[in-house]
Order: sequence, then C-alpha cells, then structure tokens
Amino acid sequence: MRETTRSRPLHSGDLDRSAAERHIAEAARACSNWGRWGADDVLGTLNFINTEKRIQAAGLIREGRTVSLALRFDMDGPQKGWRRRTNPVHTMLDTGTDAERGMQGFPHGIGGADDVVAMPLQCSTQWDGLGHIFDHGWAWNGRRAGEVVTSDGDLVTGIEHAADTLVSRGVLLDLGRHLHPETGELPDGHAITEGEIEGCIEAQGVSSQVGRGDILLVRTGQLSRVGPGAWGDYAGGPAPGLSFTTASWLHRSEVAAVATDTWGFEVRPNEFDQAFQPLHQVCIPNMGLTIGEMWNLEELARICADTGRYEFFLAAPPLPITGAVGSPINPIAVL
Amino acid sequence: MRETTRSRPLHSGDLDRSAAERHIAEAARACSNWGRWGADDVLGTLNFINTEKRIQAAGLIREGRTVSLALRFDMDGPQKGWRRRTNPVHTMLDTGTDAERGMQGFPHGIGGADDVVAMPLQCSTQWDGLGHIFDHGWAWNGRRAGEVVTSDGDLVTGIEHAADTLVSRGVLLDLGRHLHPETGELPDGHAITEGEIEGCIEAQGVSSQVGRGDILLVRTGQLSRVGPGAWGDYAGGPAPGLSFTTASWLHRSEVAAVATDTWGFEVRPNEFDQAFQPLHQVCIPNMGLTIGEMWNLEELARICADTGRYEFFLAAPPLPITGAVGSPINPIAVL
Amino acid sequence: MRETTRSRPLHSGDLDRSAAERHIAEAARACSNWGRWGADDVLGTLNFINTEKRIQAAGLIREGRTVSLALRFDMDGPQKGWRRRTNPVHTMLDTGTDAERGMQGFPHGIGGADDVVAMPLQCSTQWDGLGHIFDHGWAWNGRRAGEVVTSDGDLVTGIEHAADTLVSRGVLLDLGRHLHPETGELPDGHAITEGEIEGCIEAQGVSSQVGRGDILLVRTGQLSRVGPGAWGDYAGGPAPGLSFTTASWLHRSEVAAVATDTWGFEVRPNEFDQAFQPLHQVCIPNMGLTIGEMWNLEELARICADTGRYEFFLAAPPLPITGAVGSPINPIAVL
Amino acid sequence: MRETTRSRPLHSGDLDRSAAERHIAEAARACSNWGRWGADDVLGTLNFINTEKRIQAAGLIREGRTVSLALRFDMDGPQKGWRRRTNPVHTMLDTGTDAERGMQGFPHGIGGADDVVAMPLQCSTQWDGLGHIFDHGWAWNGRRAGEVVTSDGDLVTGIEHAADTLVSRGVLLDLGRHLHPETGELPDGHAITEGEIEGCIEAQGVSSQVGRGDILLVRTGQLSRVGPGAWGDYAGGPAPGLSFTTASWLHRSEVAAVATDTWGFEVRPNEFDQAFQPLHQVCIPNMGLTIGEMWNLEELARICADTGRYEFFLAAPPLPITGAVGSPINPIAVL
Repeated sequence: MRETTRSRPLHSGDLDRSAAERHIAEAARACSNWGRWGADDVLGTLNFINTEKRIQAAGLIREGRTVSLALRFDMDGPQKGWRRRTNPVHTMLDTGTDAERGMQGFPHGIGGADDVVAMPLQCSTQWDGLGHIFDHGWAWNGRRAGEVVTSDGDLVTGIEHAADTLVSRGVLLDLGRHLHPETGELPDGHAITEGEIEGCIEAQGVSSQVGRGDILLVRTGQLSRVGPGAWGDYAGGPAPGLSFTTASWLHRSEVAAVATDTWGFEVRPNEFDQAFQPLHQVCIPNMGLTIGEMWNLEELARICADTGRYEFFLAAPPLPITGAVGSPINPIAVL
Repeated sequence: MRETTRSRPLHSGDLDRSAAERHIAEAARACSNWGRWGADDVLGTLNFINTEKRIQAAGLIREGRTVSLALRFDMDGPQKGWRRRTNPVHTMLDTGTDAERGMQGFPHGIGGADDVVAMPLQCSTQWDGLGHIFDHGWAWNGRRAGEVVTSDGDLVTGIEHAADTLVSRGVLLDLGRHLHPETGELPDGHAITEGEIEGCIEAQGVSSQVGRGDILLVRTGQLSRVGPGAWGDYAGGPAPGLSFTTASWLHRSEVAAVATDTWGFEVRPNEFDQAFQPLHQVCIPNMGLTIGEMWNLEELARICADTGRYEFFLAAPPLPITGAVGSPINPIAVL
Repeated sequence: MRETTRSRPLHSGDLDRSAAERHIAEAARACSNWGRWGADDVLGTLNFINTEKRIQAAGLIREGRTVSLALRFDMDGPQKGWRRRTNPVHTMLDTGTDAERGMQGFPHGIGGADDVVAMPLQCSTQWDGLGHIFDHGWAWNGRRAGEVVTSDGDLVTGIEHAADTLVSRGVLLDLGRHLHPETGELPDGHAITEGEIEGCIEAQGVSSQVGRGDILLVRTGQLSRVGPGAWGDYAGGPAPGLSFTTASWLHRSEVAAVATDTWGFEVRPNEFDQAFQPLHQVCIPNMGLTIGEMWNLEELARICADTGRYEFFLAAPPLPITGAVGSPINPIAVL
Repeated sequence: MRETTRSRPLHSGDLDRSAAERHIAEAARACSNWGRWGADDVLGTLNFINTEKRIQAAGLIREGRTVSLALRFDMDGPQKGWRRRTNPVHTMLDTGTDAERGMQGFPHGIGGADDVVAMPLQCSTQWDGLGHIFDHGWAWNGRRAGEVVTSDGDLVTGIEHAADTLVSRGVLLDLGRHLHPETGELPDGHAITEGEIEGCIEAQGVSSQVGRGDILLVRTGQLSRVGPGAWGDYAGGPAPGLSFTTASWLHRSEVAAVATDTWGFEVRPNEFDQAFQPLHQVCIPNMGLTIGEMWNLEELARICADTGRYEFFLAAPPLPITGAVGSPINPIAVL
C-alpha cells in the first residue's frame, strides 16, 4: 500500500492491482503478531479474549433469547466439489424402519438409530483454524508450514487447542443494511472498506463499538439471496466481503475473531489481478486471526435491527477434532 | 416396579430382573410426556428451557471462566467398531508440506490446508437426539419409528430442530466424589439411585438444586480411569450409571437434558437379566429426554469441588446436521 | 403388454403409457425366475455361467490384448448428489511430500503413502446386485425386501456372494454404430427394442450370437458425447437405453448379466407417464438379473468394429464388500 | 549384503542386523530398474506382461473354474487403526425396510437400495501401487516423492495407469505346504529365502516355473490361522514373509508382480534391528514392483495341491481410482 496516515481510511483504490506480492508482504509485516504471545503460542488473537470480556458478555444477556448462526449441514449445502469440498454426506447405521420391523436383534422392544457423517470441515458454517492458510510456506507464529500441517493434520495449532476459548462478546456490523437500507444486501464484488466499517459502527450506535477480544460478525446480506436449491456460485464465486485494505483495521481493532455470512470472508473477485484470498494470507498466518465463514446472520440481524442493540453473548466453540485446520460449528448468540 | 410411594426412593432391588418388559412398560406409562407439548412437538423436554432459565443461567457467570466438556475427536477415541461405530477418521485435502513445497498452484505465495472428517455421530461427546431410541417401534410423541427415521435420516425430530435450544443452567452432580470421596470414582456396575442423587444434591448444597429446564450433568468418575491408549471396555462394557429406577425421578425433576461421563448414561451391565439400555427406552421415546454421553466432566468437577458451586451457564448446541439422530458436541460451561 | 407372438418383436408403441403398474406386473410374471435355482438362491441369472462357458470364453483370447471397461473413479465423475450419490472422495493418509520432508518417523529412509476412498457403490462403473431393486416390497426369489436389505446391508444376496462368478464370455452389441453408423451414437430417449437387438446381432455376425451364460454389453454411444467436465445430465437425465419391452427378450436369452454405457441401463425418460426405471423392477427382483451400468465401452467398440469380432473373455469380479447391493468394478475384456 | 555368487542363495544370516541403511542401499542399487522403460514410465515391472504371456495364460484355463482370492471387505477385517487404517465402513443410503414400508416416494411399487463405502485402500486384499513407498524421498523411476504424491494423490504413477495391465499367468508357490507339509503353515517370523523359493519350485514341479511377466503368489499359510473375530496381530504383527535377501531373486525373476497372504509381504519382525519394511523400500521405488497383500490363497492352494498344477490365468485389475497409491481388489484365478 501507499504511504498513508490513519486519518484517511484505505480502500481498494489504494492498491496497485498488479502488485499483489508487494501489498501482501507490506500488510503482513505491518500486521504481524508473530511472537506477541510467545514462541509456543497456538491461539493467536484468541488470546485477546479474557475473563473480563466474558463477564462483560454475560451482562449482555437480557432476554435469554438464543439464535443459532449455523446453516444446516446437509447435501443441499453450497459446495460444488472444488478442491474436493463436498457437502456433508449423512448416512444411517440403524433406522426406525429396521427397528419397527424387528430387524435389530435387541431385547424387550428397544430399537435404535445411529448415524455417520462424512464432511469437509470447510463445507459449511465454520472456523478457519490457524493452520488453514500459509504465507510463502510459513504458518502462524513463524513456523514452517511443512512442520505444522502434514497429512497427519495440524500437529501444532490444531483447532482442538481452541476448544474452550471461543466464548466472548459478539458484535454484529450489518454492512448490508447500513449501506443498502432498502435491500439490506451488498452486491457481489463490493469490497467493504475500513471507512465503511467505521461508518457502520457510528450509525449503529454505541452497542456496536468493537474492541479487544470481541468476536466481530460482518453481515453482507449475500446469504439472503442464496440458499438450498439456489446457491449459485456462493461457494467461491463473486461475493461482497472485506477489502484487502481492512487488514490494518482488523489488526488495530484487536478483535479475537471475525466471521462473515459469505463463503470466503473477503471480497470476491479479489482486488488484485492475479489473486487468491490475499487477506487470508495476511490475517491467518501473520496476524493469527481466527476467521469464520458461512455464518447465517439473517435472524440475528433482524433482531439487532429491531432492538437497536448489536452486541450479545456469543458461544461458538469448535468441535475439538485433533489436528483439524478448522471446524464445523453451531455458533449461538444469546441476547 | 412395585407400588411405591415417593417417600421411599426406588433402587435396583425393587426390580424383578426377569421382568424387563413389564418394568419398562410401567415406567414408560408413568413417565410419558407424549402430547404434553402438542402433537407436532419435536423437542420433548428441551421445551422446559425458557428465557427466564437462560437469564438465570447468565447470572451464574461470575469469573468468566470457560471449561470445555468434550473429549478430543480422533482415532485414539474409545470406539472399537461395535455396530460400525468407529473413531473419527480425519484426513487432509491439502497440507502445509504441499504448500511449502509449492505443489498447490496458488498465486502470490498463499498456501492452504483443508480437511475432512468421517465419524459416527455417536462416537464421542454427544447428544442423543429424540430419534435415537424407539420403544416397540414407537418414537417420541407417539409416532411410528418407521415414519420418523428411515435411511434418509430422522425426517421429523432431527437434531437440527434443537439447534438453538441447548443453552441453559447446568448443574453438576458429582456422584463419584459424593459416594467415594477418597477416589472420586464409582465402580463399574454401580447403579446410581434416586436416593443417591438426592443425597448428593443435599451434600453439595443449594447450588446443586435441580429443577425444570436445567441441564443435569452426572459425573461417575469413570472417565478418570480410562482414556486414550487405555479405554478398555469404556465403549459398551461395565460402567457406573443411572439406575433404571431413576426414570421417575428424571421425569418429576423436569430437567431439559441429562448428560454423563460414561458411554451409555445408564448402569452397565443393565439391571435386568436380558437387557439393553432399558432406561434409554423409557427416557428417549417416552419422556422425550435428550441424553448426553461421553462428556468430559473431570476439570469441571475439580473446579466445582474447589469452589463449592455446582451450577453454571452451559452452552451445548448440537451441530445442525439435517436429519441426524444425534450430534457430536463441544459443550462449554461458563462459570 | 398386449398379447403378442414372438414373431413380432415388441416396441415402445405396444405399451399403454398410463398403465405402468399393469405392464410391470405382466412382465414380472412372464419373466420371473423365482425358485428356478432353489429357495436359497442368491445368484439369479449368474447361475447360467458354467465351466463350459468359461472354457469357451478362454478360447476367445487370441491376441492377449486387454481392455479396461471402467471409467476413472474420481471427483470429476458424473454424480451430482441425487439421493446422496456423490463422486468418489479420495484422500491421503500419508504423502510423498511428508515423506520427502522427513515428517513420517520411519527408519532407514523409508517413506510411505496411504489413502482412503469414500464413495457410493453406485457412483461409477458398477454392478447392481440383486438387493438393489425391489418390486412392491419383494426382493429377488420371493423374499421380503425388509428381511433382505436393512441398514446393515444386504443380509441375504450381498454382492460378496458373486465374488467368483462374473467371468464369462462377453458379447458387445454396438447399437450405436449399428443404428447410426455415421455418428455411432443413439440419441437420448432412444428406446432400444428387441427387434433392434436382433438386427444388430444379425448385422454384426456370428461372433455376436447371445446365449445362456453370456455377459451382454450394450453400447449406446452416449458416453462418447459426455465425460469429465462435460457430464451434463448423464447421471439420471435423458439417455438412450433398453426399452421396457426387451424384458422378455432378456429373459429368453438367458444371459447371465447385462451392462450398458449409460447411467441407468434402460431408456430415459422411461416409457410410462409416471415411471422410474420400470425395467429394473422386472429384471432385478423378478428375473434375478445382474445389471451393469456406466461401463466404458468406447475402446472395446472400436476394436470390435475393426476386427469384426464382438466376443471376448470378460472378467468383471465385484469387490466383495459384505452386504453390498452393488460394487464398483474394473471389468476387463481380454481379446 | 556380502559379496555373493548366485551359486549360494542368500538368507537372513547374510545380513548385518545393524546395517539396514547399507544393505538397503546396496540392494536398491543392484535391483534398480530406473530408466529401464524410459523416463516417463508409470508401470515398472508390469511392463513385463505382454500379449504372448496372456495368450499363454489363457491356455491354462482347462476346467473353467474360478477362485476369488479376496478377503471380504467389512468391519470384521484385520485393521486395528494403525496410521488411521480402519476396516471398511459400509452404510446404506436406501434400504429394503424403507422400500417395503413405502417410505421412498417412487412410483409403481419400485423400491431401491443404495450404499456407500468408506475405506482405506490398504485395508484388505490389495495392490500396492508404485507411489506407495519411497526411498529417501525418491519415488519410482527417480522422481522426487514430493512431486509424485501430494495430498491430491499420486499425480504421476496413480493406480489408474495399471487399469488394464494386471491380467497374466499366475503361479502359486505354496511355501507353507512345501516347508511344513504337516500343517501347511509357516510360523510367524519365518523369513522365506531364495533357496526355499527355488526348492519349492523344484518340489512343486514344472507348472511352478516362474519367469518374466508372471504374477507370483506366495502362500505362507498365515491366513489359515487367523480370520474374522480372530485376527490377532495379523495387521502389522509378527508374520512369515519374504526375506529381505530375496530382493535380488525377485529382480532376476522378472516377475510382473508378487502377492502374499500376509499383511506385509515381507517377514515380520523385519530382519534388521531398527527397521520398517526394508524389502518394500527396495522393491517398490527402486525395482518398480507392484506388490499384493492380504490375498486369500487358501482355496486356490487346496486346488493346486490336489491337482499338482500351480499355474493359472489370473485377472487382478485394480479399481482405477485416480491418483490412488493402491487399490482394493478381487483377484480371480481361472483354472
């Protein structure tokens, strides 16, 4: 990026579209948290969540209302097979039809149903773990990618290390409604800038202040125009999302994690001529930021719009699959 | 069961070991909640959780401390293949070794790791959904098992319906420490009675009162003597657990859900000569009770013993796998 | 079907399109082989293959040339998710990148690669076993479907019983070239009649005579216009295939098995107004006929056209997956 | 190995147990076939099979009798989870119980059953492909392991390249019966030497001559003392098998492939102090030899013993899973 002062927020126009490598390197250096939590760290920005933050979050539970932020996990999901990412395949080991017919061999009239799922951990509502993305062969905290993630999984920063961390204050920034109040949706290709983020915070009011240890949820509204049977190119095609230029803002904000309602967190197509998810390359291996994708923020956004309150208690624990570079999740907002 | 008054708590000795069918039928009739929440109900006792209960639970967050109650999901789990229940198989679609070596074909130095898991939903820390068990071909709320759970999954009471319900006040009853303070563990085959439950509540004190809408966690301590590399027969073998005779107490308590640190919730071997999980047969299809198994209550129990407080905020949302009869979970206690 | 004599071959026009049930029932009765090989039979028409037939087949090996008749099993296959039929997902447990980097922990410089596949048995080149299709709840040889195939698999007629049977004389009938010599392909929706079959045999000459115990391969040519990246609706959409009216011919011919180069063996759309694979309903549960689908007959057909010889030794053993209702295969023609 | 002349066959005693690296390097050099079939070769010793060999094999079909040499693929297999190798998990997508009960939604009384399998390709009767083993980071024909097998699979020598090759003359050497006529079994740990192989060929007679392009089957008899429910340590434990010292004989013999009835082809424990499958390290990446394991040779061996004929037509085509480093197979001997 060009020399900037923080008084003028960055936007896509500040980028040289042919200089992805340079911009990524600069942002990586500027936003690096390597060593910040010691050489052995496996949590990155999740370290920002502390007990005070959780006590604050608990105080946000006023109505006792819960909202699940997960899509349903099934064959009607958005995946189309890119890089072997399929939708979940759920099969039964035992069924009610078998039980009813007396085919199970159990005593005293008991019958049972069991099931199995096979799914990519990146197939639907998820956290990207710190082993999910590398920068020139480097993983989070300055480790070599090949020493961290082998075919045995993530030997160092597996998602299981985050098993008890992801409970904090959540804040929803509804960029869709903020920028397009009439439709509530950003168009595909819209790159959300830090200026727009700051504007959204200001417009939504004091409950939307974002700071250290928060889990930030950014709603683009894309999910309101796609869904089962009509996913289109949701999984990897054009989408609204964060501009590459928000890296610095994300770093300064000291959020613990960020999640969006899109497949890929950042704007698609990306903002360089030859590019693939450059903001990931800065945020995950360099900043140590845990990223959530494909979160269903629709109902939560309606509630926040109705009440004018955009903060809540958020529990989004990953499934502690040993060595996983991500996890399917069912995040729960409690208001 | 014989005629009893509530003044004398039931125990295993009240059962005719040769009369499983009769006892199950009597308990099923006595504990049935069919129709209680209408003909279309898909949640059973989860209906007991309401907003007041969650506000009460929020008030229990004092320290902002979180405890994950999940085992790790990996090949070192307890499953041995019974009824095709395997441990989770986690494989990589992309790795850091590939990325580091430049084998991924992405631009500007970005590399990635993706992964896949194949696992029975009943393989580790889990909820049993309402479609998991049948009684003589009948499923929860009086539906035919064969109309509810086919090889397409649970068409009616799939776990996805509980996606936003399982947040409530949790109460730990540490029967292991209560009955065996020296070791903290119940021996295999120990059938926990309602008398012992009531005694534990009394001994643990007022924070242990159990009532409508609570999620009850029963610790036997079995998990403190097994684990990766030394599971023995944890998955289906002898174990401490709830006595069949606690069905009535569970019904009267109006808890929303119950979870234990054992494979099977109820005592093993079961208390009838020819039997397989008779308490399940009463609780799931008749009472509509959601049951948790293989929860790791060890750290939580240590904290509760230290603080003398046995209640906490509990978030245990299932993964909303459409049509699933259960879900792997990472339950989080917040104290 | 209407009363016919064998002197006039049947065709689609002989069917009342609104009377699927009646036509199926008549054909099922006319073509039933129930009891023909005893009450315990698990092989159906595979019983027609005998040692003489195999010796005859061995005599057809003249050049020592082999042709694989399988599609490749990978994510670029034809499946689109209908009824949870996906393409094969192949993942690695160990890789060369890990080995080369020294991440495997083996002594003396040895490294290894292992892999896993998850796939529907019906996803690509395959045999349909006798438990694959039912007629009004009846399975092959007059057994109740619910007693044969539960969620435990095919308890009676699993494909493992055919492990050593499927080696015989193969005969290719290239209907595509016969009826459309210019393109070599039948159009989608073309229903191959017994008259066309007989005509093809006559045109191809003496090596094409089809009789008891042969494995008949019917080439439509559809596979020459679809393939990786361009499958279109191959998996379930319009396609050429056998007319429902060929049931009687298939029965009389006493072939051991029949395979085609299409997804579904029979013509699509089917020849009744409301229908789904009616010829399967006659052939598998009633006739006991093993059916092959998605066979790649392109190279074999070129060779046969060049040599004028349409018969060969064929080895197409299923993978003996216990209780499977089908098997992925790599059939080998030896000429 | 020490300097030897071919007049004295090698045996385990010729090895310095502490010098695995040296012996492997010497054998690798002596037995290397790198470049023998050109720089682009992907088949190794399978190139030895030619049309003349197959015509010869066809001439061995005398009785038309077939013998399947596969174990059954199911949960009762030998795997215990080492390196995530599980037994096959076979689940149903549709069942006869569903069909019989009318839960499938198909017209005119048709019902169906579909199924899915998830399995390591190395879990049971199999071929090891050329990408299965590496020697100091080198793969077959002098390629870098990391360029050949990534998490995307074997990009160069995937088993699909062998789809139409593995049909040839098979020869059974029944070392179990030859060396232990009373039991027919070699004890675990027995290292089969080239002297014993030569002795077996001589004893079995002229039909046992082994030469270029043959597929050699070595029966140890271990499989006659293990099996479903009683596998013991078959998958990786002590076993009879080929001595490391047979590498040179295997090379000179110019067999196309070798298969055994054991988990690991070579003797276990291996013949060096610190070792893991050293003969694999010579044979696969250096010699380019395709190796079969866990073949069921029991019935075939009985027939050969009865008839005194040890040669037959053998069809053992792999399933062409793109990029696979091995394949489950159902090899068929035709006599």
